[in-house]
Amino acid sequence: MTQITRRGVLTAAAASAAALAPSIASPPAVAAAPPIGKQTAGFYRYKVGSIEVTAVTDGARTVPLPDGYVRNAAKDAVNAAMAAGFMERDKLTAPYTPVVVNTGGKLVVIDAGFGPATYEQTKGAIGQFHSNLAAAGIDRDAVDTVIISHFHGDHINGLLTADAKPAFAKAELLVPATEWKFWMDDANMAKAPPGSGLDANFRNARRVFAALGNKVTQYDDGKEIAPGITAVASPGHTPGHTSHVISSGNAKVLVQADVTASLAVLFVRNPGWHGVFDMDGATAEATRRRMYDMAATEKLLIQGFHYPFPALAYVEKDGAGYRLAPVPWNPTI
Amino acid sequence: MTQITRRGVLTAAAASAAALAPSIASPPAVAAAPPIGKQTAGFYRYKVGSIEVTAVTDGARTVPLPDGYVRNAAKDAVNAAMAAGFMERDKLTAPYTPVVVNTGGKLVVIDAGFGPATYEQTKGAIGQFHSNLAAAGIDRDAVDTVIISHFHGDHINGLLTADAKPAFAKAELLVPATEWKFWMDDANMAKAPPGSGLDANFRNARRVFAALGNKVTQYDDGKEIAPGITAVASPGHTPGHTSHVISSGNAKVLVQADVTASLAVLFVRNPGWHGVFDMDGATAEATRRRMYDMAATEKLLIQGFHYPFPALAYVEKDGAGYRLAPVPWNPTI
Repeated sequence: MTQITRRGVLTAAAASAAALAPSIASPPAVAAAPPIGKQTAGFYRYKVGSIEVTAVTDGARTVPLPDGYVRNAAKDAVNAAMAAGFMERDKLTAPYTPVVVNTGGKLVVIDAGFGPATYEQTKGAIGQFHSNLAAAGIDRDAVDTVIISHFHGDHINGLLTADAKPAFAKAELLVPATEWKFWMDDANMAKAPPGSGLDANFRNARRVFAALGNKVTQYDDGKEIAPGITAVASPGHTPGHTSHVISSGNAKVLVQADVTASLAVLFVRNPGWHGVFDMDGATAEATRRRMYDMAATEKLLIQGFHYPFPALAYVEKDGAGYRLAPVPWNPTI
Repeated sequence: MTQITRRGVLTAAAASAAALAPSIASPPAVAAAPPIGKQTAGFYRYKVGSIEVTAVTDGARTVPLPDGYVRNAAKDAVNAAMAAGFMERDKLTAPYTPVVVNTGGKLVVIDAGFGPATYEQTKGAIGQFHSNLAAAGIDRDAVDTVIISHFHGDHINGLLTADAKPAFAKAELLVPATEWKFWMDDANMAKAPPGSGLDANFRNARRVFAALGNKVTQYDDGKEIAPGITAVASPGHTPGHTSHVISSGNAKVLVQADVTASLAVLFVRNPGWHGVFDMDGATAEATRRRMYDMAATEKLLIQGFHYPFPALAYVEKDGAGYRLAPVPWNPTI
């Protein structure tokens, strides 16, 4: 019996790539079933005590790695981290995963994804949240409460349908008070250079909330804002960026939002790196280290908006950074 | 703004667990949508070059950690590894993931799971393969070829329907020649102590293949046994245990079967541990180290039957063992 060796596997693989010689490998040409080409519906369900959580992906988008993606690390160092993490160099694939929380008394959505308008633009790469909600058996009209972590487009644009109508028509919309005050302040907006990303974000946030008649309930951190869901300030990414702890009995999960953002695993491994998307890099880093030190010590489960789907992992300390330990997929609930 | 601290999070969580004080946390009692309690369909699709692979879970089963689970490590050491891996002590959760390969010319199933008879017995924990195939849009009658890695029940019992009929009625069934010779040899069977697990495995393998009229095609390792699929000997777990390399263009994935088995992550981290399920522990360890050294060096993707779903990961060397680096979930294909 031939045992596997490096040469053996490579030879075998080369053979398989070559033209087929007569053998059981070249049966008569029979049409197999056609490839299906469709991914499973992107939701994943789990319990936190008596609370049912459904992680629902909004998709993932791959773009060329921008220059200056990390403010305090060279592109070569970023690419080296990509390679070490089994990712392709010079490409950036960011996933997006809002969650739905059924507390028993309330059906709560935390963050809303890019919105269905983006689905067409990206050929289905992102903007999947509403269709995946439907696949998960969740009716948008049954949602009682929507909680927003911060005012970036990948978290708020999905508050609207493709024709800019309220997507969660019967829900109360909860937004961080600090975040609301910052983005709705005309003096702050006036300081943003016209045409800058910051300026665009002011305009986008105002567009989205205006389409909802600016009907929001502002919430403060440190408070339970829905049954079993407590707001926890985690500033830096934006001024009012807020995370949420879901708690039931002895069980608990930290819905971190963008404590690590974009291609989050890079910033898990390198918590001192300041991504260009963090408005205040030093504050974001301090928040990240404080929360991850706590999560590692406490073995606190984290639902990370930008972790790979289903975006549920522990963090452990590893050298100067951290490492994600994804929770094993449970095929039942 | 309150910033997060360890105390802050714990206090907030304690507050959320306590009786609700009047606040926005205690809205009027409105009935939310009921919890859904159903997991998404357990399949995951990806491409290997031009080949479409669908990983389809058969489920996962949790049992008490048996005494003697690892022959050469104490139960305390096993439990310590569980805790280090964020798993519960004294429990063993093993996942099972067969794969379907559409080569363009052939629709191929590699391993068949426990079979639907087990579904009822375990209240749906395992035996999901056939129903998840249907959810994945794969018709069992369209399968051209079934490849078996070895003759344990979690790999062969799903060759039959619940009423012991052929589950892949139109498929050619390929089995490792070495494995067939071992389990069908009456002298080998006579050596197995009556009532032992080994004896039970002889009886089960003969039961399954007899129900299929013993109509099998025996294959040798080192050969391409279906278009783009090459058999690679990986003995130790059983005498004829065989892995498979799927190859298309420059892309390649090793479908390892049980090179690490049962709660595989324990044996990824501790390749020198001999699980009670490995018939020849020393040979299984040698196979494991040889294949994982090669996979780590080559950055060869592995589809692991007993990895957490979708069971697709790279391995990297880490200290005296290895570590899985799961491939990020792709919400499209």
